[in-house]
Amino acid sequence: MTSASDSVTAALARFHAVIPAGGVGTRLWPLSRADAPKFLHDLTGSGTTLIRSTYERLVPLAGNNVMVVTGESHHGAVTGQIPELRAGDLVLEPEPKDSAAAIGLAAAILDARDQAAGRTGDTGTIMGSFAADHVIAPVSVFQGAVREAVATAATGKIVTIGIKPTHPSTGFGYIRQGDTYEVAGAPHAHHVVEFVEKPEEAVAQDYVASGDYLWNAGMFVAPVAVILQHLAAAEPELHAGLTEIAAAWGTEHQHQMLTRIWPGLPKTAIDYAVAEPAADAGDVAVIPGYFTWDDVGDFAAIARLNPAAQQEGMTVIGPKARVYSEDASGVVVSDTKRVVALIGVENIVVVDTEDALLVTTTNHAQNVKKAVEALKEKGDSDVL
Amino acid sequence: MTSASDSVTAALARFHAVIPAGGVGTRLWPLSRADAPKFLHDLTGSGTTLIRSTYERLVPLAGNNVMVVTGESHHGAVTGQIPELRAGDLVLEPEPKDSAAAIGLAAAILDARDQAAGRTGDTGTIMGSFAADHVIAPVSVFQGAVREAVATAATGKIVTIGIKPTHPSTGFGYIRQGDTYEVAGAPHAHHVVEFVEKPEEAVAQDYVASGDYLWNAGMFVAPVAVILQHLAAAEPELHAGLTEIAAAWGTEHQHQMLTRIWPGLPKTAIDYAVAEPAADAGDVAVIPGYFTWDDVGDFAAIARLNPAAQQEGMTVIGPKARVYSEDASGVVVSDTKRVVALIGVENIVVVDTEDALLVTTTNHAQNVKKAVEALKEKGDSDVL
Repeated sequence: MTSASDSVTAALARFHAVIPAGGVGTRLWPLSRADAPKFLHDLTGSGTTLIRSTYERLVPLAGNNVMVVTGESHHGAVTGQIPELRAGDLVLEPEPKDSAAAIGLAAAILDARDQAAGRTGDTGTIMGSFAADHVIAPVSVFQGAVREAVATAATGKIVTIGIKPTHPSTGFGYIRQGDTYEVAGAPHAHHVVEFVEKPEEAVAQDYVASGDYLWNAGMFVAPVAVILQHLAAAEPELHAGLTEIAAAWGTEHQHQMLTRIWPGLPKTAIDYAVAEPAADAGDVAVIPGYFTWDDVGDFAAIARLNPAAQQEGMTVIGPKARVYSEDASGVVVSDTKRVVALIGVENIVVVDTEDALLVTTTNHAQNVKKAVEALKEKGDSDVL
Repeated sequence: MTSASDSVTAALARFHAVIPAGGVGTRLWPLSRADAPKFLHDLTGSGTTLIRSTYERLVPLAGNNVMVVTGESHHGAVTGQIPELRAGDLVLEPEPKDSAAAIGLAAAILDARDQAAGRTGDTGTIMGSFAADHVIAPVSVFQGAVREAVATAATGKIVTIGIKPTHPSTGFGYIRQGDTYEVAGAPHAHHVVEFVEKPEEAVAQDYVASGDYLWNAGMFVAPVAVILQHLAAAEPELHAGLTEIAAAWGTEHQHQMLTRIWPGLPKTAIDYAVAEPAADAGDVAVIPGYFTWDDVGDFAAIARLNPAAQQEGMTVIGPKARVYSEDASGVVVSDTKRVVALIGVENIVVVDTEDALLVTTTNHAQNVKKAVEALKEKGDSDVL
């Protein structure tokens, strides 16, 4: 027991949390939009934004060692949310380049610091990447899973935290777990057999029934050197560019290198560039997460995540909301002081912002993305 | 023929149109409200407000002889809409007192003018009262009915124009017509047997099937002396007060008398105070109106009245409206520049104003009044 505890403590000393804060959250338009993406909202009525909640979940494990990768335009908003963030740990992307570039650059910067400090192998940084816009509870169970993931990563694995499915969702990819992986301090670790794409309904039912499949929540914990090694093999051009930027990080050339190299980098997902090749090579382990997890994929999720905001069948979100409802159910998200009256509408979704209004139903909530695309085509980009 | 035509011309020379412009139109909240009542809106996409359309329908019959009775707070808006209105023909109520006081004061003022000018009996003013917020087409058919009503009124009757029902509505009162009333220039005139209240569905069906019943649209045409005679009998206190105000009309005491006497006047409807007693006395005739008539009672009417505003199943009202809809039908009334996106909502009603938003369905449109009452109770009167 002491040995396992010691090994977790030693591994955690190497831990650096990375929070990729990208993605507009188009399905949450008009609340979430280019200049006010999902992670900058308080979508659970907790009183804190999703990115702040993400940060606060990680601080007890990572201390000061937290890095955020986000778009240039969110500089002010992110530092406003996380004033504790060190300047060198704020990575500002000149343009979106998908997750492989974002997480890869974080890994490359942390690896460059390791090299400068003479940390290698068993002393090198273990990074853990956790999206800025997910909702997780209870936090202590999540933190226990991360501890196990860090202990497992210390053995040289790429470790994902997979969510124990509560229903046969067709909206998530799945992780197929194999045999137990024996690691001190990580009693729940398993080998990963493969990552699988979002399944059809019947397949999802089989997955859940088997007990061998977990939801892929995109949480990765691994030594930065191992991530970069897989990235170099799968995406050599991307790896080279990121290494070059990382070498200039924290020098007077940082900005110049970033703006010169970043726009030319290939766009791909970390799943394709690192996780799947590593799984094929038998290098991935998984910690099952027995916490509830929600990626707040649409407004139906908002109702689910805010049981306390229920007013006679309506979920009302918004500190200034003035809602009157009669024979109505659903969700109102109010970003204005406007009075909202709902009469005789069931499972309605109303999102009221200064310049745009959405009216749909919880069943159609997933179609919001399509509407946003149509508005873009129509030239209504001012409200996107 | 010449005789009939001459008698109509002679009667029309005595005609003075009165437009009571009261009533907030609560069922059209939040578009219609205390400081922007129904009659000040263009609800048909015609480009003109309902009160202006009402005025323009009457001018070819009444010329300059048009009076408006409205609330003090609408002084500016009404004169803005009808710059032709003479100051003495603008009656501003210090507070709402229902239709008997409003129409009775108009009658009393016109009667006082008759007396001052020595007009009596066959030369006295025939007034016609037409609400400021009804929608009528074709105008020429309406005008023909008014001509017949004026010719009939010249015989000393109170004449109502009843609308030929198109369906067994339970939302209107009905007029039961009797035998033909032989009047030169009014080939469609009938005696009125009685006025009846809003009926149950089955009763309404019987009414329509019988062919003897017309909708009561609240249109009255009569010599002012006859109106005042019935009013004096049924509501002596009201009659006395109105006569006193009318005597001071157009003098330096007008405002003082109005503000002193008006607040104490009894509140009752012209139907109870004049029309029903007169019908019982056999003094009422009716001209059937073969025009379409809509009192724009709720937002479902808005869809009905704006066939040209249809965009793929949605009726969109508002010059600045920016509406995107998908798998949606119903009505959007936009009083803002906000983008409104509707996804997967059928028969929806969305009314978007600067400070209040209504979301309901065409089937629940009548319940808006209840919502307004509830908002008043909650203390949200700022948006009412």
